[in-house]
Amino acid sequence: MVNVAIIGASGYTGGELLRLLLNHPEVEVSTVTSRSNESKPIETIHHHLQDTGLVFENKEPGEFDEDIIFTATPHGASMKIIPDLYEKTDAKIIDLSGDYRFDDYSVYEKWYHLKHTEPIPSVYGLPEINREEIKKSRLIGNPGCFTTGAILSGYPLSKHQLADRMIFDSKTGVSGAGISPSETTHYPNIADNVNPYKVTTHRHTPEIQQELQRFSDVKISFTPILVPVERGILTTNHVLLSDDVGYETKEEREDLQGKITEIYKKEYKDEPFVKILENGEIPRLSSVRGSNYIHIGCFEVDETGQLVVISAIDNLVKGAAGQAIQNMNIMCGFDEKAGLNLYGLHP
Amino acid sequence: MVNVAIIGASGYTGGELLRLLLNHPEVEVSTVTSRSNESKPIETIHHHLQDTGLVFENKEPGEFDEDIIFTATPHGASMKIIPDLYEKTDAKIIDLSGDYRFDDYSVYEKWYHLKHTEPIPSVYGLPEINREEIKKSRLIGNPGCFTTGAILSGYPLSKHQLADRMIFDSKTGVSGAGISPSETTHYPNIADNVNPYKVTTHRHTPEIQQELQRFSDVKISFTPILVPVERGILTTNHVLLSDDVGYETKEEREDLQGKITEIYKKEYKDEPFVKILENGEIPRLSSVRGSNYIHIGCFEVDETGQLVVISAIDNLVKGAAGQAIQNMNIMCGFDEKAGLNLYGLHP
Amino acid sequence: MVNVAIIGASGYTGGELLRLLLNHPEVEVSTVTSRSNESKPIETIHHHLQDTGLVFENKEPGEFDEDIIFTATPHGASMKIIPDLYEKTDAKIIDLSGDYRFDDYSVYEKWYHLKHTEPIPSVYGLPEINREEIKKSRLIGNPGCFTTGAILSGYPLSKHQLADRMIFDSKTGVSGAGISPSETTHYPNIADNVNPYKVTTHRHTPEIQQELQRFSDVKISFTPILVPVERGILTTNHVLLSDDVGYETKEEREDLQGKITEIYKKEYKDEPFVKILENGEIPRLSSVRGSNYIHIGCFEVDETGQLVVISAIDNLVKGAAGQAIQNMNIMCGFDEKAGLNLYGLHP
Amino acid sequence: MVNVAIIGASGYTGGELLRLLLNHPEVEVSTVTSRSNESKPIETIHHHLQDTGLVFENKEPGEFDEDIIFTATPHGASMKIIPDLYEKTDAKIIDLSGDYRFDDYSVYEKWYHLKHTEPIPSVYGLPEINREEIKKSRLIGNPGCFTTGAILSGYPLSKHQLADRMIFDSKTGVSGAGISPSETTHYPNIADNVNPYKVTTHRHTPEIQQELQRFSDVKISFTPILVPVERGILTTNHVLLSDDVGYETKEEREDLQGKITEIYKKEYKDEPFVKILENGEIPRLSSVRGSNYIHIGCFEVDETGQLVVISAIDNLVKGAAGQAIQNMNIMCGFDEKAGLNLYGLHP
Repeated sequence: MVNVAIIGASGYTGGELLRLLLNHPEVEVSTVTSRSNESKPIETIHHHLQDTGLVFENKEPGEFDEDIIFTATPHGASMKIIPDLYEKTDAKIIDLSGDYRFDDYSVYEKWYHLKHTEPIPSVYGLPEINREEIKKSRLIGNPGCFTTGAILSGYPLSKHQLADRMIFDSKTGVSGAGISPSETTHYPNIADNVNPYKVTTHRHTPEIQQELQRFSDVKISFTPILVPVERGILTTNHVLLSDDVGYETKEEREDLQGKITEIYKKEYKDEPFVKILENGEIPRLSSVRGSNYIHIGCFEVDETGQLVVISAIDNLVKGAAGQAIQNMNIMCGFDEKAGLNLYGLHP
Repeated sequence: MVNVAIIGASGYTGGELLRLLLNHPEVEVSTVTSRSNESKPIETIHHHLQDTGLVFENKEPGEFDEDIIFTATPHGASMKIIPDLYEKTDAKIIDLSGDYRFDDYSVYEKWYHLKHTEPIPSVYGLPEINREEIKKSRLIGNPGCFTTGAILSGYPLSKHQLADRMIFDSKTGVSGAGISPSETTHYPNIADNVNPYKVTTHRHTPEIQQELQRFSDVKISFTPILVPVERGILTTNHVLLSDDVGYETKEEREDLQGKITEIYKKEYKDEPFVKILENGEIPRLSSVRGSNYIHIGCFEVDETGQLVVISAIDNLVKGAAGQAIQNMNIMCGFDEKAGLNLYGLHP
Repeated sequence: MVNVAIIGASGYTGGELLRLLLNHPEVEVSTVTSRSNESKPIETIHHHLQDTGLVFENKEPGEFDEDIIFTATPHGASMKIIPDLYEKTDAKIIDLSGDYRFDDYSVYEKWYHLKHTEPIPSVYGLPEINREEIKKSRLIGNPGCFTTGAILSGYPLSKHQLADRMIFDSKTGVSGAGISPSETTHYPNIADNVNPYKVTTHRHTPEIQQELQRFSDVKISFTPILVPVERGILTTNHVLLSDDVGYETKEEREDLQGKITEIYKKEYKDEPFVKILENGEIPRLSSVRGSNYIHIGCFEVDETGQLVVISAIDNLVKGAAGQAIQNMNIMCGFDEKAGLNLYGLHP
Repeated sequence: MVNVAIIGASGYTGGELLRLLLNHPEVEVSTVTSRSNESKPIETIHHHLQDTGLVFENKEPGEFDEDIIFTATPHGASMKIIPDLYEKTDAKIIDLSGDYRFDDYSVYEKWYHLKHTEPIPSVYGLPEINREEIKKSRLIGNPGCFTTGAILSGYPLSKHQLADRMIFDSKTGVSGAGISPSETTHYPNIADNVNPYKVTTHRHTPEIQQELQRFSDVKISFTPILVPVERGILTTNHVLLSDDVGYETKEEREDLQGKITEIYKKEYKDEPFVKILENGEIPRLSSVRGSNYIHIGCFEVDETGQLVVISAIDNLVKGAAGQAIQNMNIMCGFDEKAGLNLYGLHP
């Protein structure tokens, strides 16, 4: 059993970490913090988590003696406390903000318009790509919600040099915007609407570029779109295939579709949370709702050489809290599915 | 470990039994049947339940050798197979239709417009009222979704002779209408609409009457209403208090509200799945979504002597599959929360 | 042609007045005000109203020279400006707040927890009850959204002394909460939820009492409930019929249902915006969406003497802006349907 | 005044034609047909259209003596009756199916898997491109819903030879799937889901190609996606700009964005229903809901030379019935906005 602290536990990510960790067989949640909700029982904020006995605290970095610390703090805030946590405790740290996701801090500074504090060695916490590094790391930059769905939908193609360009059109549920009300999350602005935002400027773009361009010089474009859904991100990855991939005739396309499906299946065959659907099958948000799975499918090619790959995740689970726990499991040597053995909630 | 069969497993209730039982520590699901989907892997219907290895079968009553059989068949169909199951197997049977819920079969025949087959001893499977009988029974009539939320919201008042009349106005999610498409479940008819239906004629009315009138001669009215929600039933129980209950002055009402809250807390104090909220707090569907909990709250009294009690359940869990598993746990002597230790999914 | 000003035009009611008045054949909208949006074109707030040329202004009461002034200001704010408007202009004034709806100001002060300013003669602007008084008035207190749907669903029964008690359970769309974001209107709190609020304390209660108790001493209870709908209020009026109304046998009930339907049809037969459906038919929000109609139907009686009457309105139209325009049409001698000849928007 | 018939008026498009035509100042709707609903008043299907006096009829092609006939029949059905209507009546005909949209019938036959009947001269009814031809035509192939939003979002770029490729990712409301319930439209399958379908095979693809490739050899890909919205299509047009367009530096991109916005404004400057938003502004479905407008905006370019153009329409109005009426207005010499002067319905 390990003791766990969650710093900044009053948001949706904090609530989701709690929902999952409170049933994790190897974990005891010993501290949850929220400066603005100090001394309140967690159910005053997280009404679905009744009778846990947990109360929000407010602690200094040096006061934590947990084995694992999750920082569910906003970007900018994380880098103010993590250096202290790193130095003053022995905890393994999993940060859910954008602060420790980048190989090159200048990329961070360009997209986040913030000066970064001094560097600490961290690993980008996408187990499907970086499992071995995660095992050895003390600080994980847990991936962004959009990036998880995007990168995993494109990684096998980039690795196999099959794509010139990927245009990601990602539809996200509103929980991605967080627990604080705003014009963006006002019900009458969301219901019966489809709202693209931060087109060409969203901060998850450089994360996707960083991970996919490790393997090839594929061009990346990214458009995030709010849809009237609570949870989930469905990513349509419009891939422009390399010129040397044959797609002119119907037979070539059908052959190609089958081959690509097989490449995905092979690439992810040992992954506990990746499900590759058959060519033609479309992933569904409700199949992964509340679960740590990612479903990837479609694999249709049109006459212009555009391949469509689609992925579905729960933005709060595989896109945040679940993946963070998966990283913890890897770092601690637990069964990677421990505490995450939930099926999706459909309907 | 017990072996479990689910008969009629291709609907939402079947899917929900599977979602929960596949993670139940004391259970092995060995047979799932669906005549119309024979030989199909369950994920062809239940896309969220990938890679279980389970395949729909079609079996005769005599062919089951499981310890527990759930019949998730429609009313009318259950009473055609259960007598055979009862006779030809040793299984404990939990029926999720309306066929074995009534003390008096003539009530069934009046409301269901069907002739019942021969009687078999059964117990109404609402643990909060009938736990001791459930322990000893071999056949459970698992309660209807509306009735669970309604009865539990009114039971302490009826038991304490505090109510003359209860008017239930129950808002249900669309999953209650089942997996088959119809005009009723057509998205453009549900979205941005609120659809009362079967006003004064819904078949859950006599169930509510049966259970609540065991304790007093409270009058019962029931109005079901479809709302654009996937899961969950929020029941507003408009209670007309008995004349001898003082509610004229503000002080009397506040005093009364506190007393009633205490009566509920005391009545349900040992119940593992009932949460009584403080006077004034309103239950939320998202707090119980996907879980077996019922939240009960509000307890406000107005100047006319109307008390409002509100309950929230997940119609597919506490209102169907979860309660069925709770009944199984009781019948088998398992921890009553086994396989049901899930928090609600919010947001 | 009359000139019209809208004071406080930046909210949903203001937007709806504009949507309708900009196509009204007898009206020129000459002034729209919003202190916080002064100098902005209206489309910066009301994105659906492009290219009207209108710009928000900020004016003192004495500066208006319009024939008609709509005050779409919050309660409390209206009573601060209307006395001045009343004195310094010749305009007919239609106030959409609660400030001028009450016969007895002490009722207002009790429910709104505000001291009222000096009285001005005003008429409660529900044309179906007060058309003749509206014609002669210079100041209209335009009814609340819930109250319109509730009163019109119960008025014929109160008038005919048929009801002892009415329990209103009213489901409202989220636009009723206004244009400002809050925890209440945060998408993840509304979607897939059903949220009762202000149970026994909502300020529309005394309005409903005032109008229905003009005709009989019927008892009134009112419960408002937020549902995941953008527009519309569906009111379930649970009526307890007077003891001398026969409802014991099925024949008596069917007879009674027919008679009650006829009473409603007769009472509203000349009303341009009231549609009485046949006994058994259920009103639909989507049938009145965007229109000034109210549909009333159901009229089912159960064995306990509970009659269910259901009404559907668009809260922003018949529940606010449309009714205000209907009042203007009456006050100005226009065709009562002028500018309001729109059908509902379904789907 | 012209007399109008609607053939196949029991679906959503028929209902929408009725909603708009019943308030059209130059039109009398004299016949509405529906074989399966013969003799029923239209409000039995279209509950929002009460008391019109219209009753569904069943007529042979030779029996129509109207000036204008709208055929709201499915593809395949239209081509069976239109030749007769064309020959036996003098009516101008506006067909809302896909049967008369193609220059080259072999394209139709390839995508619709149907043999076409003999050709009749028809014009593709997109006024913004073909207004002059529409004026002179007797038979209009009214554009598909997706195609209207897609073509108008790309037409200026194709005309100005600015684009190599357009990848359309179009999110549609569920009313686009029609009035008949199916698994696709089952509420629990749509709510909280995002469902791509017919990826690379949707029949609107060749329409988009036909119109945009009139001006350049731009490559076209199209992905339709069902979202939990009732009405509306929001199209994200991911444009790959021609190589000779400079987009490398930030300044070049900002300059380019401004230029492209101006090209759109100029191209559509006299169009009564096209609104070009400023660079950076995002179109909203709720701004055009229920109206015949199309809003086009965004115009952001990223570092890879991807330009994002976004359009919003109401699929049943500008995407079907409204555009058909716009075509009628043009054919009859009416004011093009007659009967279509409605603002969008927000919220």
